[in-house]
Amino acid sequence: MNTLPDFCSPVPLDKAYRLLNHGPTVLVSSAHAGEHNVMAAAWSMPLDFQPPKVTVAIDKATRTRALVDGSGWFALNIPARTLAQATLGVGTDSARTMPDKLQRHGIHTFAPPDSDVPLVQGCVGWLLCKVLPEPHNQQTYDLFIGEVTHAWADSRVFNNGHWEFDKAPDDLRTLHYVAGGQFFVIGEGMKVGE
Amino acid sequence: MNTLPDFCSPVPLDKAYRLLNHGPTVLVSSAHAGEHNVMAAAWSMPLDFQPPKVTVAIDKATRTRALVDGSGWFALNIPARTLAQATLGVGTDSARTMPDKLQRHGIHTFAPPDSDVPLVQGCVGWLLCKVLPEPHNQQTYDLFIGEVTHAWADSRVFNNGHWEFDKAPDDLRTLHYVAGGQFFVIGEGMKVGE
Repeated sequence: MNTLPDFCSPVPLDKAYRLLNHGPTVLVSSAHAGEHNVMAAAWSMPLDFQPPKVTVAIDKATRTRALVDGSGWFALNIPARTLAQATLGVGTDSARTMPDKLQRHGIHTFAPPDSDVPLVQGCVGWLLCKVLPEPHNQQTYDLFIGEVTHAWADSRVFNNGHWEFDKAPDDLRTLHYVAGGQFFVIGEGMKVGE
Repeated sequence: MNTLPDFCSPVPLDKAYRLLNHGPTVLVSSAHAGEHNVMAAAWSMPLDFQPPKVTVAIDKATRTRALVDGSGWFALNIPARTLAQATLGVGTDSARTMPDKLQRHGIHTFAPPDSDVPLVQGCVGWLLCKVLPEPHNQQTYDLFIGEVTHAWADSRVFNNGHWEFDKAPDDLRTLHYVAGGQFFVIGEGMKVGE
């Protein structure tokens, strides 16, 4: 289905970096030649404002790597607290050895308009990215640079370019992974004057 | 002074990535030819486990960029909540136009053993990094890759490779910047089983 969920609102591209700026753990989704997959990645960051760029590390051992290499596209999906168990699951298990890992871990996807890259339901932000080919980075460091072509956010928690975690249901707080199944959720806001 | 504060404990290099894994905003410190500086950066991430590597974006317009280009070294300092105002200050003002910006914003530094790179007092984690020269990344994307040679953490909040935000004083929670003076502090922990 190429329709967006009701609460999924477009984010202007010049504000897209704000979805990642506070350092959430992401789910990397991709599709190629009829196959799609999702993996977890704690290693991503914004790299530019406009046009927005991001970096993400995608290990050669992952099935996602083959799909990104094949298609030249990926999406960064920002999971919220209710997806903690699923995020750990798709970060631990590989589609190489567990072909039905998405079903097993309860990951459901939807398709954005005019794209084959699946987006993950239950996330609070989504960045659709086209790979800017940098073969040396990709080969030496597993480091990918993507240009963000579209971005969306859950309007219950991100509005007018700002996360509103303190006003939204706690279940919509983003996840920040450390190791060994240990996450932290994002906490309270602090506004500081210049 | 080349002595570490009492609570500043070495972190084994194979656990150093965990200091950054949850996506905190960092302070980038550097020194060259008798000058030192500190700037804020929300755009950094781990890039490898062992030897640990990191990426960080350092804009050409910053004074820090000249010091990193000159010395080949930088440190990523992880500020805690009490440094929010100072972090915004050194991220907003440039030493190019405000040479005393560190004093104005109350940033105090100390030196680690056998290094000229200043570390920022009041932070809860520190990663000393040697630039792995990648001229194309640096020139095209302002993207630096560093190998972590030493890491330390505040033992009141990071122990045995784990952040203990829920046990430590709230003032030691890390900062996660969005935009316009808006930070979030890291929130509560969630342990998820595989």
